[in-house]
Amino acid sequence: MTTPPARRGRPGYDLESLLQVAVKLFNERGYDGTSMEDLSRKLGITKSAIYHHVPSKEELLRLSVDRALDGLFEVAASTEQLDGRAIDRLEHLVRGSVLVLADRLPFVTLLLRVRGNTKVERSALARRREFDRFVTDLVKQAEAEGDVRPDIEPAVAARLLFGTVNSLIEWYRPRRGSSGAELADAVCKMAFDGLRA
Amino acid sequence: MTTPPARRGRPGYDLESLLQVAVKLFNERGYDGTSMEDLSRKLGITKSAIYHHVPSKEELLRLSVDRALDGLFEVAASTEQLDGRAIDRLEHLVRGSVLVLADRLPFVTLLLRVRGNTKVERSALARRREFDRFVTDLVKQAEAEGDVRPDIEPAVAARLLFGTVNSLIEWYRPRRGSSGAELADAVCKMAFDGLRA
Repeated sequence: MTTPPARRGRPGYDLESLLQVAVKLFNERGYDGTSMEDLSRKLGITKSAIYHHVPSKEELLRLSVDRALDGLFEVAASTEQLDGRAIDRLEHLVRGSVLVLADRLPFVTLLLRVRGNTKVERSALARRREFDRFVTDLVKQAEAEGDVRPDIEPAVAARLLFGTVNSLIEWYRPRRGSSGAELADAVCKMAFDGLRA
Repeated sequence: MTTPPARRGRPGYDLESLLQVAVKLFNERGYDGTSMEDLSRKLGITKSAIYHHVPSKEELLRLSVDRALDGLFEVAASTEQLDGRAIDRLEHLVRGSVLVLADRLPFVTLLLRVRGNTKVERSALARRREFDRFVTDLVKQAEAEGDVRPDIEPAVAARLLFGTVNSLIEWYRPRRGSSGAELADAVCKMAFDGLRA
């Protein structure tokens, strides 16, 4: 076996570390307000060094929002694999979504701020709507099975549920060693069983 | 009794209607991204006609966020007047806050997007923190009285509650004749008693 040659000179960026910096900058200044020039200054590398990794700013946006959306759709897929009652699948979905949010916080934050000015943004919004329909259908099923209170419209219940989940980006900041599991517990307790003792 | 003379020429703006247009524009383009020039173009009046009503763009921001904050603090004040258990006062506070949000949607939306770059913004953030402390104290009291589940930290419960309330700005659009009371009901049902049947 051979070992790869040691890297020379100052540490470079790979696509992953470049993406981490880009998503942070997009969240601070807005995607529209961030230029490749800003990004190259922040990274301390030339624009052509960035273009070595990625063809455009919009591609950085696509990779960033897909990081969030792929996480959410993996949870949706694992939810569909489950047997049993819809309410339990719904809880699995909410819990998993909080874990994705906690694990990929800057990517989910960016996704939730996307407003649809570019093709990538419109496509992200379309995937969000698809996810929302999945949630609403699950609430409807759970209500049909008698496990969700019938006095809240399923579409409203779905929005309140994910409104609560999404609002976490406003204040949740991960601590070292925390997986977001406690947070997911708290959200599920409040949303499904209520704060009342 | 005398009647005021009829207004001449094209309809003008009073401070209130000017504010309605300004807050809409701030929400669309961001406060920083909106100039008095933009506002005068949108209104179809000169900048000096705007300055007749209000001395600066920052004053428009102050009036707008105060419209939201004053509503929330009126609800807090009426909550403090109530006797009885803290959980009931907390529910009164949540319900009243949803009604303020539904009634003053563009103003609350602007308030929740304020990030603190100017004196007015910093002062708005300070009042928001004061409101948050009020909520957290009420959750603590309710927990001490045994009415809130003890397995969620009061500060987390307070944030989840108002995360749910604040998330309404993302999707709620008032309909004619709707007071937001149904929405307030749905929020209180989910947050205090849970979605589970």
